[in-house]
Amino acid sequence: MQGIFITIEGPDGAGKTSVLNELYPRLDLAAERSIIKTREPGGIPIAEKIRQIILDPKNQEMDERTEALLYAAARRQHLMEKVLPALEEGKIVLCDRFVDSSLAYQGAGRRIGVEAIATINEFAIEGTVPDFTIYLDVDSDTGLNRIKNHRQQQIDRLDSEGLEFHQRVRHEYLKLVEENPERITKIDARMSLEDVVEATFQAIVTRYPEYFRK
Amino acid sequence: MQGIFITIEGPDGAGKTSVLNELYPRLDLAAERSIIKTREPGGIPIAEKIRQIILDPKNQEMDERTEALLYAAARRQHLMEKVLPALEEGKIVLCDRFVDSSLAYQGAGRRIGVEAIATINEFAIEGTVPDFTIYLDVDSDTGLNRIKNHRQQQIDRLDSEGLEFHQRVRHEYLKLVEENPERITKIDARMSLEDVVEATFQAIVTRYPEYFRK
Repeated sequence: MQGIFITIEGPDGAGKTSVLNELYPRLDLAAERSIIKTREPGGIPIAEKIRQIILDPKNQEMDERTEALLYAAARRQHLMEKVLPALEEGKIVLCDRFVDSSLAYQGAGRRIGVEAIATINEFAIEGTVPDFTIYLDVDSDTGLNRIKNHRQQQIDRLDSEGLEFHQRVRHEYLKLVEENPERITKIDARMSLEDVVEATFQAIVTRYPEYFRK
Repeated sequence: MQGIFITIEGPDGAGKTSVLNELYPRLDLAAERSIIKTREPGGIPIAEKIRQIILDPKNQEMDERTEALLYAAARRQHLMEKVLPALEEGKIVLCDRFVDSSLAYQGAGRRIGVEAIATINEFAIEGTVPDFTIYLDVDSDTGLNRIKNHRQQQIDRLDSEGLEFHQRVRHEYLKLVEENPERITKIDARMSLEDVVEATFQAIVTRYPEYFRK
């Protein structure tokens, strides 16, 4: 049996990282097979080096298209070195962000255009699409407030964008949900962390009953 | 008057760096306006950081498409931060490598495909084409021998490719010369350094008499 590629998406402040930290051990306990948790951009040494360039607050001159190409480069390397080999070994791969993030952030948020971003990402992924995507939805006001309250110590270059940027990102995510109802499941991330984790857990194990114990 | 964008291309061992080091001061003396020399990948801090990732011999796991996306990212940043502003100020920009290098090295050398490489580069350059390109031609045997003899101390990740790789690179360069006779001038780089510099100097000042003193 081939592995499954599950991605977690959402705008800033949706709580992706917290959800994944609670979700992963629960899925790991329930899984009938090996499961790994990874993230983009990063996950392996070359991609982590690219991540450092992207997120460094000192790189203020970073052009938006340079950024988009760096995300695609990090994605490619991560896919080839970590995701695809794990899937070939039959593992479940739980990945924090994938192409949908670039369509939403660079395509819509930065206004480069969703089609142009899709084109360079197609070069990077050569047809690999996640089997299942959980989209954690939160309105931009709530999301931005959460960022401001929880990440005082570690604001990176992307967090410093304004409300309209984040609204464009969310709008594109919602459009992707509409266009890909089979692949993407939307979960309301304004609920308590506990409830979001539970809803995400149930969505995954219900979709793949043969991969998880009840 | 708008500036001029001149690129120098060629396979490894053609002597680009040595030629540029001699050519630049001569052009600078003769030029009626400001002239800058720069290189790809690199030329500005963000692109130099990307260059380090590309050329680091430790990054053996680097996927070919990751590499191609990194080159495009470095190119974009260098173009926006250094080349285009200089051209807008009316300067002459002398650049060591541009898109032709990616078509030859990644498209043909690494066999990713010239069209796919052209697509991601079009995303990066948005239509910017050099005004004039000097292609320093050398056969692959001579080129590889020069590398082996002169760069013992600093072999980078790309120099370690074999003869067939370098033959594919040169073949693509020759095709580009054929397809772009107006833009690209081929110079035989098997001549002495002095003769190659002289031929390159003459090609440039003859093409742009209004920019250079006789």
